[in-house]
Amino acid sequence: MKFGLFGGAVLKNDGNSGDSLGYEPFMDIVLEAESLGFQSMFLVEHHFGGDGQISASLNLLSHLSALTSKLRLGTAVTVLPWHNPVLLAEQVATLDVLSQGRVDFGVGKGYRDIEYKGFCIPKEEAFDRYQEAIKIIKKSWTCRDKFSWDGVYWKFKDIIVEPAPFQKPHPPLWSAAGSDDSIRAVSGSGFNVLFDHFATFERTKQRLDIWRAACTENGRKFDPYEVCLARGLTITLSDKEYDEAIQRREARLSKMINRFGTLPGVKNERPNSYSDKGAELDDAALIGDPETIIVRLKALQEMGFEYVNILLPDDEKSLRRFSEEIMPELDDTIRQQTEVNEPALAKL
Amino acid sequence: MKFGLFGGAVLKNDGNSGDSLGYEPFMDIVLEAESLGFQSMFLVEHHFGGDGQISASLNLLSHLSALTSKLRLGTAVTVLPWHNPVLLAEQVATLDVLSQGRVDFGVGKGYRDIEYKGFCIPKEEAFDRYQEAIKIIKKSWTCRDKFSWDGVYWKFKDIIVEPAPFQKPHPPLWSAAGSDDSIRAVSGSGFNVLFDHFATFERTKQRLDIWRAACTENGRKFDPYEVCLARGLTITLSDKEYDEAIQRREARLSKMINRFGTLPGVKNERPNSYSDKGAELDDAALIGDPETIIVRLKALQEMGFEYVNILLPDDEKSLRRFSEEIMPELDDTIRQQTEVNEPALAKL
Repeated sequence: MKFGLFGGAVLKNDGNSGDSLGYEPFMDIVLEAESLGFQSMFLVEHHFGGDGQISASLNLLSHLSALTSKLRLGTAVTVLPWHNPVLLAEQVATLDVLSQGRVDFGVGKGYRDIEYKGFCIPKEEAFDRYQEAIKIIKKSWTCRDKFSWDGVYWKFKDIIVEPAPFQKPHPPLWSAAGSDDSIRAVSGSGFNVLFDHFATFERTKQRLDIWRAACTENGRKFDPYEVCLARGLTITLSDKEYDEAIQRREARLSKMINRFGTLPGVKNERPNSYSDKGAELDDAALIGDPETIIVRLKALQEMGFEYVNILLPDDEKSLRRFSEEIMPELDDTIRQQTEVNEPALAKL
Repeated sequence: MKFGLFGGAVLKNDGNSGDSLGYEPFMDIVLEAESLGFQSMFLVEHHFGGDGQISASLNLLSHLSALTSKLRLGTAVTVLPWHNPVLLAEQVATLDVLSQGRVDFGVGKGYRDIEYKGFCIPKEEAFDRYQEAIKIIKKSWTCRDKFSWDGVYWKFKDIIVEPAPFQKPHPPLWSAAGSDDSIRAVSGSGFNVLFDHFATFERTKQRLDIWRAACTENGRKFDPYEVCLARGLTITLSDKEYDEAIQRREARLSKMINRFGTLPGVKNERPNSYSDKGAELDDAALIGDPETIIVRLKALQEMGFEYVNILLPDDEKSLRRFSEEIMPELDDTIRQQTEVNEPALAKL
């Protein structure tokens, strides 16, 4: 099993980062994570929240690309409707060159009402805009001659987009997927898939089964490293710590639901998920002593998961303990078999 | 007198960089320049040229921000009509945070026909788009509450733009200016000014005189570090090297004129500038042995210039020789008097 990180830093306009990591401590923890054996950092991107979440994730990753040497640099996710797709293709390709091929480009169509409203983009256009952007970005990355684009949302005339990405034909594309239909669609698109950290183990297993079946239908070989599962992590050493962790997680998720009306990926699935406090929250996240977490990860591995993104903890201690006490207990036979320097590439 | 660098790297889609610096050699030379006493790197940004010029300059600067500690990181220039101004404000502010306040944000309205055509933006809208973008970017950087924007080209609703830049109230804004009118306009806007490396010494002196007079009219104190003059540099140690340098410069500029129909800043001033080969080219650039270049720089200092950006040479040798043999000969009294850790800040 291999592990990455998922999350971000916070810098509010008043200069504070609240309970979260500021930009500098965030960099420190990511560098430490690389040395501890974590293999990727998937960075969030959000706008206009007022809570200081990272807005320019590709710039942070460009900074990180100079400080790291092995870590893969991901977005989770870049919301395509907000961006000029050609400028975005240039930025991602540049990051791919700067990092010598370490980009994992996670994309989405957005879910937060304040972002649609802020950018004055009607929510009902989101999917069409997303689809048009994907086509333009792929064309920008792979077309070596001049091309023009006369779309619904974007027009370009006689352009050559430079630089070409380092990875050929282009960086792997990742998409979040929650519902059965969207899981099948992502499999069909040739993208890799990101599963969220909100769904229970049971639902998570269902999703993977749907993914496998869809891959078979699409004539796509199942590759466990093309499926990345996010999970919250809190290593607790006493009942008191355990209870506190559950409460913190509950408070955080309730706050998100209150602010954004939904959580990504679970909107139509579990509208009342977090009304039943405790048990279900516990079930989605990895909370407990190291032995408990090892058992839980082995259960995920049994389901077929080999790539887990840990929701960035606020302290280095948890990462170190995870690396020292938990990672070595997870069988990495598959990793050793399939790990090569080049990443699995997204299909065109 | 203080010195910076101006230029960029090249990476064509076929993976080559031709006679120019690739991304990695470019980084190496910039790091060396910082250690040699150069104080800034102003990076170009261009699109669709097919010759591999840097397209995502803020990502390269974000990478450089992790490798450098003192060097100021500039754009020369970011063409505002191509960018969503709010996303751009986020990116520049993020770079400013990552570099702890080292951003010099150079902006322009563009001049290349292939870029207007490529982005499908009518050239006649360029100035209005530029002006609207500037207003939105400044508001994004400085407004601490939600705001909305209902402009001609951009609309935003109830947004808080994060992060705030590190420099307060915001990074210095720089604008290129060539004609008398545009020099006066830039002075009036509170921006700092970039003078190009195409104009002769005589015209360059006129420009500075106009700038000074405009500052007086605008009630703005003349600060020599708010005026940055670009100059080509080739240190030649023989007549043969000198002749070759003149020829190379001529070929480069003729190529630009042929491709883009004009050079920035000199369009209506010297349409036939480069038909008279040799003398005039020699006059604009710093070409010659170290003694000659020292004399030329002292002439610029006499005019009132105290900040010169050297057009990035292709080799480290020239930079080292410049640093060792030329820099020490230029009086830095003013620098020592006025140099403080905080940069001069653009007015709101």
